[in-house]
Amino acid sequence: MNITLAQAEAAISAAKKKAIKLKTKMNICVVDAGSNLIAFAHMDGGWIGSVDISMKKAKTAAWFLMDTAALSPLVQPGEALFNIEHSNGGLITFPGGVVIKDEAGEVIGAIGVSGSTVDNDHAVAIAGMEAIK
Amino acid sequence: MNITLAQAEAAISAAKKKAIKLKTKMNICVVDAGSNLIAFAHMDGGWIGSVDISMKKAKTAAWFLMDTAALSPLVQPGEALFNIEHSNGGLITFPGGVVIKDEAGEVIGAIGVSGSTVDNDHAVAIAGMEAIK
Amino acid sequence: MNITLAQAEAAISAAKKKAIKLKTKMNICVVDAGSNLIAFAHMDGGWIGSVDISMKKAKTAAWFLMDTAALSPLVQPGEALFNIEHSNGGLITFPGGVVIKDEAGEVIGAIGVSGSTVDNDHAVAIAGMEAIK
Amino acid sequence: MNITLAQAEAAISAAKKKAIKLKTKMNICVVDAGSNLIAFAHMDGGWIGSVDISMKKAKTAAWFLMDTAALSPLVQPGEALFNIEHSNGGLITFPGGVVIKDEAGEVIGAIGVSGSTVDNDHAVAIAGMEAIK
Repeated sequence: MNITLAQAEAAISAAKKKAIKLKTKMNICVVDAGSNLIAFAHMDGGWIGSVDISMKKAKTAAWFLMDTAALSPLVQPGEALFNIEHSNGGLITFPGGVVIKDEAGEVIGAIGVSGSTVDNDHAVAIAGMEAIK
Repeated sequence: MNITLAQAEAAISAAKKKAIKLKTKMNICVVDAGSNLIAFAHMDGGWIGSVDISMKKAKTAAWFLMDTAALSPLVQPGEALFNIEHSNGGLITFPGGVVIKDEAGEVIGAIGVSGSTVDNDHAVAIAGMEAIK
Repeated sequence: MNITLAQAEAAISAAKKKAIKLKTKMNICVVDAGSNLIAFAHMDGGWIGSVDISMKKAKTAAWFLMDTAALSPLVQPGEALFNIEHSNGGLITFPGGVVIKDEAGEVIGAIGVSGSTVDNDHAVAIAGMEAIK
Repeated sequence: MNITLAQAEAAISAAKKKAIKLKTKMNICVVDAGSNLIAFAHMDGGWIGSVDISMKKAKTAAWFLMDTAALSPLVQPGEALFNIEHSNGGLITFPGGVVIKDEAGEVIGAIGVSGSTVDNDHAVAIAGMEAIK
């Protein structure tokens, strides 16, 4: 099962609300389980360099079935996955990419957020993910 | 002046309505005047190969300040711009990319649509563009 | 021998004058004999999609020691170099790329121009090339 | 508002003067607010590997609305943005990219300099930025 456009739009809408609450200007991207782009929004005045980062966060989460925050410790120098970012045309492995699951726990997509601190990015991604029932 | 997210979302909403009317499943992309991604929607069941095509159509229109339909005759074998598609990381030069202007006639962005015949793609892009006042 | 920055700037200055005379807004790129970027100018309001095209025209001319106009007939369907544009990260093989030679006839660089018709592009490139003694 | 070619050329001219004063041979790149190339100069004998670095510094500054020097501490191992360089086709996050603002404080472009120590690169970029009124 893959995420629908209606679900992706609900996630983006919730993420935007959270972003406004945090006084941030975010790029928000939702991909399906196959890492294909389903929906995207760039909030006015947000960093344009974060368009690509939000996409790569969402794709990275979908590709490895885990939040990008879970990858961050594993990619440090000396760790097992050091420099994994060189694969797949470029990964982003810091927080802000969050997997989206259905009721059975199956990954149906992922949301990636970029445009502020990684803590804010992650919080906005979580808000988007939680909008999907 | 650049297109706002609210304008881009209005364009996508109108484009989706037109796509449904034509019984098609489209990928719809809106970029700003600098060709940066502002909003995107992939309709359920649409071709995933058209995600990238819709983006490249929108970017091509923004980069050259003209609808992609205007480029199509110029890029044929023997014509002046043959194989221009190899620039800018890949152009798409068949119909479905349409420029978006403000009231003063200035280009503020572009919409790219892909997922059906090029006639349908172009019609859906026009419907999206016309939603912006 | 390679083109100097002073020579490249003289070429761009002359090319800009010609572009203004033709009422066009050009992107003008000068590379050295090794196809490395030496100088560049984007005239206000010019197509941003032509930034990359002007670079690829200059590089294509430098890589093959001939004007891009000389390549155009050879890259047509059925001809010897059909689809050569897939090499080198993307070639542009229509007019507007012109080699620059020293007094001994040695290629010292190339100029690429994009932003109008290919005839205008080529004329502006020639004007730039002729500024170099 | 975007930087004009005249402004970009003034920045490059001032940057070249500073580079000569520091006895360095620099690559100097100016981009607009959308990260599109406006002007470029490669000083005779400069590193050709720095052509691309100067461009990526300018684009990185424009994409994130901050000097690249501000990014350097954030991208170290263990820090929040470790390996962000894998986005956007390659970022450069050490000093030498500087944002250019108008009188209202709005970012209108950025300048990127590469060819010497990062301290010299940064100093030359600042000199270029300060030439724009």
